[in-house]
Amino acid sequence: MTRPRTTPEPRAVVLLSGGLDSATVLAIARGRGFACHCLSIDYAQRHRAELVAAPRVAESLGASGHRVVAVDLRSVGGSALTGDLAVPKDRAAGAPTAEIPVTYVPARNMVFMSVAVGLAEVLDARDIFLGVNAVDYSGYPDCRPAFIAAFARAADEGTRAGVEGRGFRFHTPLIEMTKAQIISEGVRLGVDYALTRSCYDPDGHGRACGRCDSCQIRRRGFEEAGVEDPTVYQGS
Amino acid sequence: MTRPRTTPEPRAVVLLSGGLDSATVLAIARGRGFACHCLSIDYAQRHRAELVAAPRVAESLGASGHRVVAVDLRSVGGSALTGDLAVPKDRAAGAPTAEIPVTYVPARNMVFMSVAVGLAEVLDARDIFLGVNAVDYSGYPDCRPAFIAAFARAADEGTRAGVEGRGFRFHTPLIEMTKAQIISEGVRLGVDYALTRSCYDPDGHGRACGRCDSCQIRRRGFEEAGVEDPTVYQGS
Repeated sequence: MTRPRTTPEPRAVVLLSGGLDSATVLAIARGRGFACHCLSIDYAQRHRAELVAAPRVAESLGASGHRVVAVDLRSVGGSALTGDLAVPKDRAAGAPTAEIPVTYVPARNMVFMSVAVGLAEVLDARDIFLGVNAVDYSGYPDCRPAFIAAFARAADEGTRAGVEGRGFRFHTPLIEMTKAQIISEGVRLGVDYALTRSCYDPDGHGRACGRCDSCQIRRRGFEEAGVEDPTVYQGS
Repeated sequence: MTRPRTTPEPRAVVLLSGGLDSATVLAIARGRGFACHCLSIDYAQRHRAELVAAPRVAESLGASGHRVVAVDLRSVGGSALTGDLAVPKDRAAGAPTAEIPVTYVPARNMVFMSVAVGLAEVLDARDIFLGVNAVDYSGYPDCRPAFIAAFARAADEGTRAGVEGRGFRFHTPLIEMTKAQIISEGVRLGVDYALTRSCYDPDGHGRACGRCDSCQIRRRGFEEAGVEDPTVYQGS
C-alpha cells in the first residue's frame, strides 16, 4: 500500500530479534505503511548472533530506527537460553507436546512487550508488532493468542496512552501461520533471510548448529516453502 | 502469624526498591509468614541511592534472598527519572490532578512485574508483593488497581505456572493506604525507615533533596503519622 508522500507514515514499534519471524513481521509492517522503530532486547541470550543480525535486518528493510535495550534475564535464570542448562538437540522439534521445553525463558515475551509499550509511549506510537507464532511455537505459553489479548488489556490500563483513551494495537501477523507460510510471505516482501539468525546455539562465527529446535523448525520451513535455505551451518 | 517450625514457609517474590513503601511491603509479607525473595530493578534510575539501600533493607527484615536485575530503561527514555529532564521541585505534590508528571517512567511497573513473574516461575513462588499505592501515587497510571488486575490475568495466560493451573497472586497491601498509614504499619512491624531512600534526586552521599514529589510526600507522611522523620536531608 503506497501512501501519498504528503501524509506522514504512522509510527509502529517492531520487536526485532534478528531471527526469521521478526524480520518477516518488519517487512509486513513496512508493507502496511508504518514507519518502523525496531526494538531488540539484549537479554543476555547465549545466541547473541541474533543481536548482530538485527540492525542489518532493520536497515535492509527500511526501518526508521533501531535500538537495543538490555534486560538481564540471566539474573532471573531458569532457562537454557540464558543459563547453564544445555540447549536440547536432535529432538522432535515442533511435534505436538504438552511439555514446555527448557529453552522457555520465564516471562520473556511479557518483559519484551512491556519494554515495547514503554517505547511506544515515548514515540507516541499506537501500533506494536511482534513475531509470536502459535503453530511452530515449541510450547511457549507466552506465544498464545489468549496471552497477547490479556497483555493488551493490561497495557491499556497501565499507560498514559491507555488512560488518555488512545491505547495500543498489538499486531501478531504470524500467529496462525506455519513456518513455510511465513517464509513464502517474507520472500514475497523482499526479506533477505541470509541476514537473519535463528539458532539457539550458534558457534563463535554465528553459524547455526542445525540441530536445536529453532534450527530444525527453520530448515523444515525452507524445505516446505520450496525456498533455498540461505543459512550457514556449522561444518559447512 | 507464627507457623510451626516444621512447615516450610511459602515463597514470595517482593519487589523491593529500597524506598519506604516497598520496605513496608516486605515487612508485611514477612509478617504473613512468607519466605521473601526480594527483587530490585536497576533501571538506570538517577536516584541510585535506593539500590544501595535495598540489600540493607532486605537483610534487616529477614529476607531469604535479594537480587538485582538490570533493565536499561534509559535506552527507552521519556522520563525525568532516567533521562535528561529535570526532576520537578517544590510543586504541590500529591495534590489531585489529571496530569501525569514527567517522573512517570513509561511502562515501568509493567516491566518490573514481568521480571517478578519470571523470577516467581523460577523459584516456584505463587505470591508476588509490590508496593504500589493509589492514594499518594503522584498520578502514575500503572499504580491503579485496574492495571494490577489486568496484568495478573496476563501473567496467568503467559506463564508455565498459569498454563499448568497454578497462577499467581499479586499482593498490593498499600494500595488504598495513605503514606501516614503505611508508616504507622511499618513502625508497628519494626521497619527501620532510616535505611530506606525515597528521594528522586539525591546528592552523591544519598542525602534527600527534600523538595521533589517523593520527598514531600514522605516528609508529610512522617508528620501525619506522628513519627520522627529519620531522613537525612541535603544541607542538614
